[in-house]
Amino acid sequence: MRIALSTGGGDAPGLNAVIRSATLAARRRGWDVVGIRDGFNGLMFPTQYPDGSGVMKLDASAVAGIGHLGGTILGSTNRGNPCHFPVTQPDGSVVYEDRTDELVGRFAEAGIDALITIGGDGSLTIGQRLFEAGLRVVGVPKTIDNDLDKTLVTFGFNTAVEIATESIDRVFTTATSHSRVFVVEVMGHYAGWIALYAGLAAGAHAILIPEIPYSIDLVADALRRREQRGGHFAIVVVAEGAVPVHGQRTVVATSADQGERLGGIGHRVADELTRLTGREARTVVLGHLVRGGTPTATDRLLGNRFGAAAVRALDQGLDGVMVALNEPNVEFVLLADAVGSLRTVPLDCDTLLTARELGISFGDEWTDLGSAKPT
Amino acid sequence: MRIALSTGGGDAPGLNAVIRSATLAARRRGWDVVGIRDGFNGLMFPTQYPDGSGVMKLDASAVAGIGHLGGTILGSTNRGNPCHFPVTQPDGSVVYEDRTDELVGRFAEAGIDALITIGGDGSLTIGQRLFEAGLRVVGVPKTIDNDLDKTLVTFGFNTAVEIATESIDRVFTTATSHSRVFVVEVMGHYAGWIALYAGLAAGAHAILIPEIPYSIDLVADALRRREQRGGHFAIVVVAEGAVPVHGQRTVVATSADQGERLGGIGHRVADELTRLTGREARTVVLGHLVRGGTPTATDRLLGNRFGAAAVRALDQGLDGVMVALNEPNVEFVLLADAVGSLRTVPLDCDTLLTARELGISFGDEWTDLGSAKPT
Amino acid sequence: MRIALSTGGGDAPGLNAVIRSATLAARRRGWDVVGIRDGFNGLMFPTQYPDGSGVMKLDASAVAGIGHLGGTILGSTNRGNPCHFPVTQPDGSVVYEDRTDELVGRFAEAGIDALITIGGDGSLTIGQRLFEAGLRVVGVPKTIDNDLDKTLVTFGFNTAVEIATESIDRVFTTATSHSRVFVVEVMGHYAGWIALYAGLAAGAHAILIPEIPYSIDLVADALRRREQRGGHFAIVVVAEGAVPVHGQRTVVATSADQGERLGGIGHRVADELTRLTGREARTVVLGHLVRGGTPTATDRLLGNRFGAAAVRALDQGLDGVMVALNEPNVEFVLLADAVGSLRTVPLDCDTLLTARELGISFGDEWTDLGSAKPT
Amino acid sequence: MRIALSTGGGDAPGLNAVIRSATLAARRRGWDVVGIRDGFNGLMFPTQYPDGSGVMKLDASAVAGIGHLGGTILGSTNRGNPCHFPVTQPDGSVVYEDRTDELVGRFAEAGIDALITIGGDGSLTIGQRLFEAGLRVVGVPKTIDNDLDKTLVTFGFNTAVEIATESIDRVFTTATSHSRVFVVEVMGHYAGWIALYAGLAAGAHAILIPEIPYSIDLVADALRRREQRGGHFAIVVVAEGAVPVHGQRTVVATSADQGERLGGIGHRVADELTRLTGREARTVVLGHLVRGGTPTATDRLLGNRFGAAAVRALDQGLDGVMVALNEPNVEFVLLADAVGSLRTVPLDCDTLLTARELGISFGDEWTDLGSAKPT
Repeated sequence: MRIALSTGGGDAPGLNAVIRSATLAARRRGWDVVGIRDGFNGLMFPTQYPDGSGVMKLDASAVAGIGHLGGTILGSTNRGNPCHFPVTQPDGSVVYEDRTDELVGRFAEAGIDALITIGGDGSLTIGQRLFEAGLRVVGVPKTIDNDLDKTLVTFGFNTAVEIATESIDRVFTTATSHSRVFVVEVMGHYAGWIALYAGLAAGAHAILIPEIPYSIDLVADALRRREQRGGHFAIVVVAEGAVPVHGQRTVVATSADQGERLGGIGHRVADELTRLTGREARTVVLGHLVRGGTPTATDRLLGNRFGAAAVRALDQGLDGVMVALNEPNVEFVLLADAVGSLRTVPLDCDTLLTARELGISFGDEWTDLGSAKPT
Repeated sequence: MRIALSTGGGDAPGLNAVIRSATLAARRRGWDVVGIRDGFNGLMFPTQYPDGSGVMKLDASAVAGIGHLGGTILGSTNRGNPCHFPVTQPDGSVVYEDRTDELVGRFAEAGIDALITIGGDGSLTIGQRLFEAGLRVVGVPKTIDNDLDKTLVTFGFNTAVEIATESIDRVFTTATSHSRVFVVEVMGHYAGWIALYAGLAAGAHAILIPEIPYSIDLVADALRRREQRGGHFAIVVVAEGAVPVHGQRTVVATSADQGERLGGIGHRVADELTRLTGREARTVVLGHLVRGGTPTATDRLLGNRFGAAAVRALDQGLDGVMVALNEPNVEFVLLADAVGSLRTVPLDCDTLLTARELGISFGDEWTDLGSAKPT
Repeated sequence: MRIALSTGGGDAPGLNAVIRSATLAARRRGWDVVGIRDGFNGLMFPTQYPDGSGVMKLDASAVAGIGHLGGTILGSTNRGNPCHFPVTQPDGSVVYEDRTDELVGRFAEAGIDALITIGGDGSLTIGQRLFEAGLRVVGVPKTIDNDLDKTLVTFGFNTAVEIATESIDRVFTTATSHSRVFVVEVMGHYAGWIALYAGLAAGAHAILIPEIPYSIDLVADALRRREQRGGHFAIVVVAEGAVPVHGQRTVVATSADQGERLGGIGHRVADELTRLTGREARTVVLGHLVRGGTPTATDRLLGNRFGAAAVRALDQGLDGVMVALNEPNVEFVLLADAVGSLRTVPLDCDTLLTARELGISFGDEWTDLGSAKPT
Repeated sequence: MRIALSTGGGDAPGLNAVIRSATLAARRRGWDVVGIRDGFNGLMFPTQYPDGSGVMKLDASAVAGIGHLGGTILGSTNRGNPCHFPVTQPDGSVVYEDRTDELVGRFAEAGIDALITIGGDGSLTIGQRLFEAGLRVVGVPKTIDNDLDKTLVTFGFNTAVEIATESIDRVFTTATSHSRVFVVEVMGHYAGWIALYAGLAAGAHAILIPEIPYSIDLVADALRRREQRGGHFAIVVVAEGAVPVHGQRTVVATSADQGERLGGIGHRVADELTRLTGREARTVVLGHLVRGGTPTATDRLLGNRFGAAAVRALDQGLDGVMVALNEPNVEFVLLADAVGSLRTVPLDCDTLLTARELGISFGDEWTDLGSAKPT
């Protein structure tokens, strides 16, 4: 048995823990393990990797001591989606080719029996296509934003929440002692989990998330009421994908391999609050700070569990599945079901209700103190 | 409506988050909130607290900014279990009295309609007794060791795991570069959760937990095999309640208000490994380092959810219940069911199996690579 | 003897350590200590502080446990420089009044014999004016940027460097594993200390500081040479006050009570590097993240030393002086000499030379490997 | 030119920064650089290192990314002092041989022109012997305890102080909210710098250091007075080398390659305080936790400065010197002067005086509020 590992998409603390765990669990079973460099590039474009370095052997010594390191030793810079590969024509236009079969053929040539693909929705979708084309595939979910529906959570998210909270803590002391208003922008395109968790943990006064379109007037009202009660400072946490009522996402740029790149919402909210409240609001944009670096123990643990579980799935004859957390279980769900299903903050979950009951504004009207449903 | 909060037992990061959250959620409903000082002392021994300071008013300003602080603003130093109160007789002997009814009477005198008691198995048992004696009571579970069965986890545990992991990380670099064997002792009387989680996250080579009696010879064998493969250093994580096969717990001292105080197991394991392997093993005892200080965002979040949920329970007319995490739910379980039920590491859970598949020794014979059950 | 403490200007971790230390050292001498709220507002505008709260009594219990907290318990939001106070005229124009004597009179009315003023160049200049007008004054220097000439360093700077370095570390793993170029903007209007120290500690590849006007072409050249040698990622650290050769500071906004507010340089450098190298460079702006939050032990220690030394100065009959670090000494320098003297990075100091010898580009031509002078 | 680097003695965060910096600064000059494994073992016992691995080539790729890692990539496990090498005789006795000339010969055979030796007093003494025997040698000082006299400070100490302070912070919240007395033991055989700095930064109530023999009765008195003033908890920081008046060092074990191993003082002080005050005192022993792991930015910076300065010394024709910090200078002192000169806490330095003025007990009689000399 010979399996390959591949990492795709943006950084997430815990990737190396998955690689280490899957490698050790497979080697223990006597399997060979290889890692593909830079997404699938190492296998698709072998000539660009001297001396066969596009596919690296993974064993105990290759993964020694990497479990607590951020990043991925395999790299993650795809030249393009192999199932929808951009080819520039002589006239400058771009045509997209489906190279799925070619890639599956490369796996066969390399004597690889199965693939564990570690990545976000994009990588998992490619994994599902490869599976449909005949390759044995197990997926390991990766998303900083925690927006994959079929797993309770995945690695990287906890680190992001902890770092975001520590950052807000730092700004907090300045806000308190210098009577200031700060707007802190965190990641979260389609889901507000990081903003909600970090905002609640750090004691923010308003949290704006994609799931609840906000009225800037209601946010300003909340800050004014707080000031009238003697609250001389305030912290507003904004997910980058937050949208005003009747408004739309603040898009800064578009990049082919990154998907829509958002941003700028933090500055926008700060400017509007300054105008509406007459108090200067300052902005801090956390951005990439929360998605790199040493993973928390929580994320390393989850990465280890996922990596070993992916190997266990293959050992049990499973494929076309994704490992998923359903506490206290790690279980397997169909990859086909997992891709394309977005996980957002339910409007009646107890975490959101808790935030509301503590007086945090979400920029909407809310008065109900009713019961909450699960997060 | 007038409710009281009380914290009992050892320290756990997140207590203040519970106090803040319960206070704000109750005040938002227009309720009065008071905090009892030092467990139940503030109510039981009012003469010792000048100017009525044994029961303090809790409102937004009293809990401002405490959500991220370790410890508890209410204190937690009981003079004794009110349901089994030690009274020293003239001849020096101690007689235990049941003062449950007296305490319930004190609540009535103070005009307190309900109690939210935040504590471990001991405090929750008192809570159940008070409930049986007629007081409305909701429990919030607290245990660093994560050994309460009816909740998936509680606040404080995550902080303990993160700090233990960081500490092992620090020792790791010394072990690696100086070719040393380190034994790190962590908390865990009856359950090995902290040792298992931190040991796996930090990449330990052996983990000894109460649930799996260890053979020191098998541990030494594992270290020798590792050395033969070129592993010139090793990290062994030991829960304080770990027991050798045919042996018994290493008890260092007994203290009436602390229960059995364990300890010393780390030094014992290090001495035996030094003797068996001929390599000097050094010991680091983490002890209280992992149960104080700033809580992680994860623990603050859970503390906030639990505090608000306890108030919600009372608002819904519930009592005699404990808030519990059943991800993604916070739910309510019967207090009577929750007390006295121990949560230990299941021998077939996927986290333990992952650790084994990664080659970590638990000091027992194990060769099976079969499937795992949920943690 | 009755002394007053006052904090002014932006936040700097360690302010509370100074307040605690000065309070305890003065109380130990039997002196009375008060703290003035919000710079000098509490004394200048007493009617705005109900019940005399503009001047708070400081004793052991008032400063208990604050030594490790960020921010300042005294607040720091001046309504204006009392020596050059802005008064809006009926026609909307602003006239500046010198209220120095009025303020000195307020000190006398309040029975305050001496002032310890903790602040940056602005606050120290006011302190010198008050001293010239007859008040006994001792200054304690405060600057995140480390740009005060008469002290080797002051509190807050170490925390800023540590947090900036940790932040660059986080970005580093993403840059490495995802082959990216990151530009990290840090504080430093006139002096590049934070950028130099954090950039060197974190292993940056280029550092742009106000003291060395940079050529963006030379920076791009350095990145290209690095790429040709196989360096597939890069980190560029930019001080907010960095200036291109033949260019000028990037000013984003001007704010009366903040002085010139810089910013935007990080995005500008990233955009230009993207254009010149053909590789997308991303920007992270640390801003306020590095000047709030829990101070490092190093800054708490220095804060403690400075606070006690300021009291010692008064006890020795000194005034018109500033406490200063001249390792291993804390010594006293004339306040008149300290104000207005800028401390920038000497071009021949050993730290800068070290960075150059390690191959870090400063955006200038440099080939000399000669000897270095002290930092 | 071909130089060698060697690391010796216990772990200290920043060793890898020195290695990286010296390597890059030397390579930039076109020199060859090698690293000797495990102190001098790699050169002395080449047969034990297969394929010449006892001496490893150091270049940009060998040191890439190591600057922020704890430990040393060269290892540091000497089989014995080459100038006083233990040889076991047939009858079991041990005879010591001087192999200095043999070692100098090995350097010549390996074509090595100069040595940069990074280590504590022991390693530096060997360096001086090698220098006297004809080898060009530059020393880089390393000591966690900060007890080398000829440099203001060296790398590793700052990390130790920061970690010790963070650890005391954690214990602090438990002490405060649970009304407990904690004794925290930190490193410091002959000098109390770590205890003094961390104790002062964390707000301890008593600090026991080797420089000031303590009376346990006076410490107990101080705690009692504190309790009478309402201080219901206390933190005592003890250096491992603290000595009672009329007593002697608490020696736990002796180990040939470690020197005298102290320890146990923390438990002893706690037991005595429990007996004298009637309040149970608990002990936390930090030990190895403070001398491993990721170095602070401050220590990385200093390591970088020292590594480059050592190369600069050789480039300037210097040898027989040690790099030393004399802020803001890195300068060179004679190795012969540096070895054997102990740096302890001066009894009249301002840091110690500050601690006293803040009311911290050192277990001695002290009432003077006079002026302080430099630290």
